[in-house]
Amino acid sequence: MRIGILTGGGDCPGLNAVIRAVVLRAVRDHGWQVTGFRDGWRGVLENHHVDLVPSRVRGILARGGTILGSSRVNPDHLTSSIDTIRGVLDENGIDALIPVGGEGTLQAAHWLSSHDIPVVGVPKTIDNDIDCTDVTFGFDTAVEIATDAIDRLHTTAESHQRVMIVEVMGRHTGWIALHSGLAAGAHQVLTPETPFDIAEVCAGLQRRFEAGDNHAVLVAAEGAVPAPGTMEFDQGHVDQFGHRRFAGIARQLQLEISRRLGADRDVTTTVLGHLQRGGTPTAYDRVLASRLGGRAVEAVRDGKYGMMSALRGTEIELVPLADAVARLKTVPGDTCAELRALL
Amino acid sequence: MRIGILTGGGDCPGLNAVIRAVVLRAVRDHGWQVTGFRDGWRGVLENHHVDLVPSRVRGILARGGTILGSSRVNPDHLTSSIDTIRGVLDENGIDALIPVGGEGTLQAAHWLSSHDIPVVGVPKTIDNDIDCTDVTFGFDTAVEIATDAIDRLHTTAESHQRVMIVEVMGRHTGWIALHSGLAAGAHQVLTPETPFDIAEVCAGLQRRFEAGDNHAVLVAAEGAVPAPGTMEFDQGHVDQFGHRRFAGIARQLQLEISRRLGADRDVTTTVLGHLQRGGTPTAYDRVLASRLGGRAVEAVRDGKYGMMSALRGTEIELVPLADAVARLKTVPGDTCAELRALL
Amino acid sequence: MRIGILTGGGDCPGLNAVIRAVVLRAVRDHGWQVTGFRDGWRGVLENHHVDLVPSRVRGILARGGTILGSSRVNPDHLTSSIDTIRGVLDENGIDALIPVGGEGTLQAAHWLSSHDIPVVGVPKTIDNDIDCTDVTFGFDTAVEIATDAIDRLHTTAESHQRVMIVEVMGRHTGWIALHSGLAAGAHQVLTPETPFDIAEVCAGLQRRFEAGDNHAVLVAAEGAVPAPGTMEFDQGHVDQFGHRRFAGIARQLQLEISRRLGADRDVTTTVLGHLQRGGTPTAYDRVLASRLGGRAVEAVRDGKYGMMSALRGTEIELVPLADAVARLKTVPGDTCAELRALL
Amino acid sequence: MRIGILTGGGDCPGLNAVIRAVVLRAVRDHGWQVTGFRDGWRGVLENHHVDLVPSRVRGILARGGTILGSSRVNPDHLTSSIDTIRGVLDENGIDALIPVGGEGTLQAAHWLSSHDIPVVGVPKTIDNDIDCTDVTFGFDTAVEIATDAIDRLHTTAESHQRVMIVEVMGRHTGWIALHSGLAAGAHQVLTPETPFDIAEVCAGLQRRFEAGDNHAVLVAAEGAVPAPGTMEFDQGHVDQFGHRRFAGIARQLQLEISRRLGADRDVTTTVLGHLQRGGTPTAYDRVLASRLGGRAVEAVRDGKYGMMSALRGTEIELVPLADAVARLKTVPGDTCAELRALL
Repeated sequence: MRIGILTGGGDCPGLNAVIRAVVLRAVRDHGWQVTGFRDGWRGVLENHHVDLVPSRVRGILARGGTILGSSRVNPDHLTSSIDTIRGVLDENGIDALIPVGGEGTLQAAHWLSSHDIPVVGVPKTIDNDIDCTDVTFGFDTAVEIATDAIDRLHTTAESHQRVMIVEVMGRHTGWIALHSGLAAGAHQVLTPETPFDIAEVCAGLQRRFEAGDNHAVLVAAEGAVPAPGTMEFDQGHVDQFGHRRFAGIARQLQLEISRRLGADRDVTTTVLGHLQRGGTPTAYDRVLASRLGGRAVEAVRDGKYGMMSALRGTEIELVPLADAVARLKTVPGDTCAELRALL
Repeated sequence: MRIGILTGGGDCPGLNAVIRAVVLRAVRDHGWQVTGFRDGWRGVLENHHVDLVPSRVRGILARGGTILGSSRVNPDHLTSSIDTIRGVLDENGIDALIPVGGEGTLQAAHWLSSHDIPVVGVPKTIDNDIDCTDVTFGFDTAVEIATDAIDRLHTTAESHQRVMIVEVMGRHTGWIALHSGLAAGAHQVLTPETPFDIAEVCAGLQRRFEAGDNHAVLVAAEGAVPAPGTMEFDQGHVDQFGHRRFAGIARQLQLEISRRLGADRDVTTTVLGHLQRGGTPTAYDRVLASRLGGRAVEAVRDGKYGMMSALRGTEIELVPLADAVARLKTVPGDTCAELRALL
Repeated sequence: MRIGILTGGGDCPGLNAVIRAVVLRAVRDHGWQVTGFRDGWRGVLENHHVDLVPSRVRGILARGGTILGSSRVNPDHLTSSIDTIRGVLDENGIDALIPVGGEGTLQAAHWLSSHDIPVVGVPKTIDNDIDCTDVTFGFDTAVEIATDAIDRLHTTAESHQRVMIVEVMGRHTGWIALHSGLAAGAHQVLTPETPFDIAEVCAGLQRRFEAGDNHAVLVAAEGAVPAPGTMEFDQGHVDQFGHRRFAGIARQLQLEISRRLGADRDVTTTVLGHLQRGGTPTAYDRVLASRLGGRAVEAVRDGKYGMMSALRGTEIELVPLADAVARLKTVPGDTCAELRALL
Repeated sequence: MRIGILTGGGDCPGLNAVIRAVVLRAVRDHGWQVTGFRDGWRGVLENHHVDLVPSRVRGILARGGTILGSSRVNPDHLTSSIDTIRGVLDENGIDALIPVGGEGTLQAAHWLSSHDIPVVGVPKTIDNDIDCTDVTFGFDTAVEIATDAIDRLHTTAESHQRVMIVEVMGRHTGWIALHSGLAAGAHQVLTPETPFDIAEVCAGLQRRFEAGDNHAVLVAAEGAVPAPGTMEFDQGHVDQFGHRRFAGIARQLQLEISRRLGADRDVTTTVLGHLQRGGTPTAYDRVLASRLGGRAVEAVRDGKYGMMSALRGTEIELVPLADAVARLKTVPGDTCAELRALL
């Protein structure tokens, strides 16, 4: 028996823990072999891989990034290459494939599975927006890093009577923004799920100032947007290199809030960006990622393909990939209200 | 409406987050008032308290310890003082009491509740051994600190070819030991749930050495014990000040393993002790503690007494105190096997 | 005897440690009293102050920011207000003033001293660019934060074969960039002292790629500039609120390097910004700040006015304010060469 | 030209940074080769070594421990083996040797140098007690770790009204104890340089309690000793494995202070031990270690043997090994008084 594994999409603390768990359990418990494909799906398409023996995964548990590399591959490219994929898997004697990745990677995994390729997915995203799992690994680390950063910014905001806007990750969902905002004692949190009214945001700031507080910390998910018609908003454009060029929500908020509060009020911006994606995972994410990887090997052992390992309560269970990719897990309204009430 | 709150038992990161959440939600959302009793149950018995207004809880979210202080009170002392307790609560116009604490505090809360005192409990223990809640706050911080410490010890163990024994908290359960041991890549983990055979422990070490690894990291919960008859074991005694004097499992392991492996093999010990209990909570614990506190206020609003707020999956729910204190939540055999398989 | 103290300019980890040290030594050792002026020089101009007793400084040693607040005041405004300043100091019975601040604050201190106001300065800047002291407090914390951030970005750069540009503080000097760049294993560091040639920067990147390394980390001080005529460069402008609007060197580098390396090469940017200024100081900075504050009190005791406390080797000494403000301490060419040789 | 390098003595964060700097500068700048001897002097005696090329030192800058391993070798064994050493160096074509280590390693280096073996030393000790250098690498990391730990213990001490004794490293000197004690706001610090009077220690605690503070944090260097005749003191003994068995100063203080303060007062102990020696170095130590390593290569280039690289002010200079090993650098009385005055 030989398992193939690949890591796709954006960086995420815990990827190496998954790889290590898959290798240790496959080799040590079952005597199987493991092939690691390089740079996500690209390694499958280009037949670029490495043999993963236990000594190769020693010491990687605590390391950020992925020893296999990653890439973003156009899904259309994958679906049009199914014969190539089948050929590479056959050539390397791969009996089952474990793709570790976010929405795109899991969509591809689901599609391959529906074409009779034996696949078990492992969900990965710092954004926590994959459905059918309570939490994804990487999220806890991202929240911890953002919280630590906001903790630091608080003292400066207070000493210098500033409004500090912190932009955290979350293009479609406010999980990181709400959790780090609550954890770090932010005063307002803006999320993609609930378009904001800039007049209300500023009114909230004014109430703080009138109550004698001369500073404020505002956390905005990168995907937060103003309610239509409430504020000028530049949605960005795609440049000549295919990169999205976007002033960013934090910068646009800074200008608008400055304009509304007047020149006396110092408004500054910090964009955490890639800091939230790299480096050593928290203990929570190391344990979660290891368990998800271990469970995927058990799924292979039991021939449960087309499934994804997932956290449900305190247990790691298997859920159908089809269910997991059917929708994005946004923050439910109740949860959002519960967390905001604690700000 | 006036809520009383107290924090009992050992220190635990997140206590201040609970206090803050209770005050903010009670005062801001309901216009109630909050009385904080000093030093756990002692503050109730001695009518020692402080008024908790929102300005009093500002900035405490990220701070370790408890602004109310804590103490350990003999439960017998409580049950014999129910008239005193009733008197103090009446005198201060307390309509509902929120005790935040571990097994002892919650037992007392349950007992008071069964005597018609309106009580909602909030579970607290770094050991994670309270039943009916997926996780307790403080646990994530303790695991993170232990993991960070073991990460550091790893490099020394490797550079100096040592066996390093790390003693972590967990008098009755192996939650911290298993999670931090897995997260930090320990090679063996000893827990109270499964008495260890010292011969097997040493055989495991020998297998590592023979495979070419010249170091090992062994994590032991403070409550780990040898299987009867397998090793001399001093269980300690209580000294003239009522403190337990105990050489500690790590120290006893060190001597026994040194004896068995021979003088060439350097065996050292680190006891993390109180480091795991203090200081700023992780973001995870700040969020969890805040949510548990907020839910307790809702329980008071709904008149749901005799309950405890608890994490179930991703939701905060109410569970009967009676159920929560009926047994200690040890690590289930399956979970233990799952985590050990990933070491 | 009564000492006045104020903290001016940008935020800097260690300010509270200076305040604490001044209060403890003045009150405890000499029985003096201490007045804290609010928000830097503004508190002197507006006679806004607070009595600083030891209980007021308890627990602030490890806290970022400044309990006195800070502000940036136009130096012209100060020099035209010397009578106001004299009046406020007399009215409050201030026998000596200890301004804690960067270049602007110390220039003002020097000017006041030359007008017979008894002043002892304490140097403060995360940029480490004040002359006559080996190091300034705040610098070590800023370098540590930047290093920790670059450590995290490394793993993502490597996993995703990226060029990562990290912009750190240092408007006029490259101290933070060189120290954090060296500490975190950056591959190139751009400093204000040495205008860079973008062709050489890109040639260096190409050499790495050709040697088989598919990623690179480039650290740029915010004040780094291209050599004249080597690259288009937007120097920014001042907006309607008096704030400098500037695309930033990192963003401009990103566009230019993307253009030169081609669309295949992913180039990303992280701007650390205020993260480097806030939060708890490192142990190094807590000790240094405490020692500098303590020495300033001794200077007052000895009537050594017009001086600044400074680190020289392992000792805290007094140097003339006139010398300290005569020039900015840029990174000497030899030191720059020494540190770059270790990249 | 071929340089030999070895790392001796106890673990110390920054060792890998020295190795990396030596390899990069020797190979890249001079085209030389580098041989790494395994496990300190033992690798020289047993001709056990590895070729160190730049790819071998990639990514080690931030890692604790030493990729070369270390050991403690009896100095008598070295001096009786000079012919073996000469033979091994000749056989491997070693033109100059760079031993990185503490007092023992540098003594040996000095002795070899006096026997015409070309040696340049690099000082290493977390204890900061090597003479002729302002600071040694490893010290800053040890102080930072100890400070972080004491910060955590503070909140528990305060919440539970405890006396907390923290034992930090420093067998002969109080550098770590004084710096971490000051940085973390400890109330008393005991050092080896000044034998303490237990009656005064307890009187200091009583003064705190009487002033209304119900907790205290006391930092003791492991080598702190009571003044003769003031307290029973067990100096430990050497066991059958040659290890020193010693109850430890913290434990002995705990018992004695408990006895004197009475059973009401909770006195606890934390021994940081090896935690202070391992793991990733601070940015300060990474820079210092890199600079010291780089300077050692320059010394070889210039044929300056019998010297040690050292930090003097802001510069790295060369000092005679003879001077560096002539005495231990204890904390001078003035410095001790200065730091204690800031507690």
